This record gives sequence, structure tokens and C-alpha cells, in this order.
Amino acid sequence: MTKGRFISFEGGEGAGKSTQARLLADHLRGLGMRVVLTREPGGTSGAEAIRTLLLHPPEEDWGARAEALLFAAARSDHVERLIRPALARGEWVICDRFIDSSRAYQGIAGNLGDAMICKLHDLGSEGLRPDRTIVLSASESEVFKRLERRDQGVADAIGGRDAGYHAKVDLAFRRFAEEEPNRFAMVESDGPVEAIHRKVLELLRPILERAQ
Amino acid sequence: MTKGRFISFEGGEGAGKSTQARLLADHLRGLGMRVVLTREPGGTSGAEAIRTLLLHPPEEDWGARAEALLFAAARSDHVERLIRPALARGEWVICDRFIDSSRAYQGIAGNLGDAMICKLHDLGSEGLRPDRTIVLSASESEVFKRLERRDQGVADAIGGRDAGYHAKVDLAFRRFAEEEPNRFAMVESDGPVEAIHRKVLELLRPILERAQ
Repeated sequence: MTKGRFISFEGGEGAGKSTQARLLADHLRGLGMRVVLTREPGGTSGAEAIRTLLLHPPEEDWGARAEALLFAAARSDHVERLIRPALARGEWVICDRFIDSSRAYQGIAGNLGDAMICKLHDLGSEGLRPDRTIVLSASESEVFKRLERRDQGVADAIGGRDAGYHAKVDLAFRRFAEEEPNRFAMVESDGPVEAIHRKVLELLRPILERAQ
Repeated sequence: MTKGRFISFEGGEGAGKSTQARLLADHLRGLGMRVVLTREPGGTSGAEAIRTLLLHPPEEDWGARAEALLFAAARSDHVERLIRPALARGEWVICDRFIDSSRAYQGIAGNLGDAMICKLHDLGSEGLRPDRTIVLSASESEVFKRLERRDQGVADAIGGRDAGYHAKVDLAFRRFAEEEPNRFAMVESDGPVEAIHRKVLELLRPILERAQ
């Protein structure tokens, strides 16, 4: 049995995370590996129910603290019921967004502070961190095109926040990557999907080779 | 303007909390005071949406940590949008359950520990505590009669837990009351509703006199 590994994809809206996560999952399955492809917020029926609340708040928006607690609750369910059991069975888990999205969005852009978000993650999920985190970063014009295509002008409560907020998110991911270079890798994600996929595989080659 | 005060009612299922909270609110309004009567989980549209998730989980039950985070999220919304603004306007807030229910149910009976629940409350609601907390405690036979009448045999995810769980909750409230005698008062709540209401008023007399 190979050792289970946990890979997360991070980045702003429209950076290509879900596409690259899917391509990586397909590639690993092609190598005969057992893979769980999942996303946050969500991934379990409990966490998906919380996702619906998060993206469609009963009032205009959630307060910053309530929002951070809801993300931590969804993550706790996801970690306990899906991610930890899969890793324990020796499977690979590929997740579209994880703790670093909460750190960037609620902690940095939302001004709650990184320490608060990390403390909530310690309390909710015993601080579980991915083995590797790929941060995708696309240019503003590319993101604009992708979101136009995907959302057809309809944004949710978080995606719809202003450009200043999203610029802070992008800076936050870059800072995290500098602080933990062994876990993070940055990938510029303009250009053809297949070329970006090859970059991702190249970055994961060491951990993949060790696992087989 | 009188100074706003925050009173919570605590106790197990069927102890008479919502009845006594309503009677107290009516009494204070009769004295010309502005009163917000509310409950947890709930009290705001956001917190009521989380309440629905808590009492009707998508799977058989929430994990202990996810449940504690959801309660803290609901409370954060409630405190930020309803309780703190009302207190700031000089109103009295009467709440059917508050932080001590999370401490007793999730912290003690649910084995997460009191420290974790208090830490979540610090992060979500800056640790707000009521000025006075009335713990109602009815005998097992009286509780059984009341719940039969109220629920007609249908229990939610938390009310439906076993007798050992509810006995731990009861013990936890007694311990909290011993630890913070200036905030807590215990009231045996068997017997006529009006007699219990008079006991509650007697216990609150000092704080009421100071407020007028």
C-alpha cells in the first residue's frame, strides 16, 4: 500500500483550481492510485449544507467572525468524515481549497488575522495541513474571461467582493508560500490547461516518486 | 436611560426556560422597560438558519467539533447583530440559553472540554457573558411530562440523546453555578409557573433595583 498524501490547490477565483485538481486526480488514477477528489467549502453532506449557507447568507452577508466559524465547522466535518479516513486507508486526497483559503480570505483580506484562523483550525481539525499546496495565479484579464464564461455574471457572496479584497487574497497566498517553501509551490496559470497540468506534475514529482 | 442588562435562562430540556423567559420579559415591559426576548441557537435570521442545520443534521448527527463550531457561529451572529446593539441602546436582553448551554452540552456532556468551548466563545463573540444566569432544574418526572406534552414524542438531534448525556448536562450547570456564584442562581422549577416566576423576580431584585 502506498502512503496516503494530501494535496491542496489554492488561488483566487478563476485561477483554474478545480480544472487542475481534476486533471491531477485523473493522472494519479491512471497510475493505478486510489484518489479522493474533493473541494471546500464542502466535500461531505454536512459541509455542503454549510457551503450553501456561506454562499447564500440569509442577510446581505455574514459577519467576519461568524463566517470564519462556519468555514471551520464545514472543514471539521470534511476532515473528520472524508479526508482523515481516506489518508488512513492510504489514498491520496486532492482538495480544491483548504485551510489556506480561510487564512487568505477571512484572516488577511477579512482582517480577522492569521492567528485567529489557525487557532480555529487547531480547535476544529487538529490543525491538519496538506503535504503539498499548489497556488495557482492567473493574470487579471485571464481571470475576468474565465469568470465571465463560468458564472455568466452571477457572483456569490464571497466571489462578488471588490477588487481590493481579491488583491489582498492574492498577496496573502504569496506570503504564505514564502513562509512555508517546503509545502507551497506557486504556478502562474495563464495559458493552456495542459501546459499548467505538466507544471503541476513536475512540482509534485519528488513526492510522487517517494510514494510509489 | 437605564443601563442595559443581559439575563440568560439555562437548564435541561423541559425545565421551563422559555416560559420563564417570556414571563420575565412581560414583567419588565410592564415596568416600562425596553426588552429584547430571544433564544439560542437562533435569534437572528443567520443564527436561525444555523439552528435548523444543528437540529436536523444532513447525516445522522454532527461530529462534536463541527457541532461546537456551528453553535459558536450562530452565537457570533446573534451577539453581533442583536444582543450587543440592544445592550448598547440601554435595553434589557433576555435569552433562552446562551454560552453556558454550549459549555454544558458540548463541553462537558460532549467531552470537548470547557476550555475549548470558552476559547471558541472568545474568538466568536469576544467572550460576552450575561450579567445574571438563572438555571432552572426540574425533577425527572416533571421534565418527562412537559416534553411529552410539548414534543408529542418527536425529539430533535440534541434533545433525543440518552439519559446519561442529559444527567451530565444537569451536573455541569450545577458546577458552573458553584464556580460563579455572583452570576448564577439555581431555581428548582417543579410546581406552578407563577411561583417559579416570583422566585426568579426575587433573585433579580438587586440588579433590577440598581437599574431603575
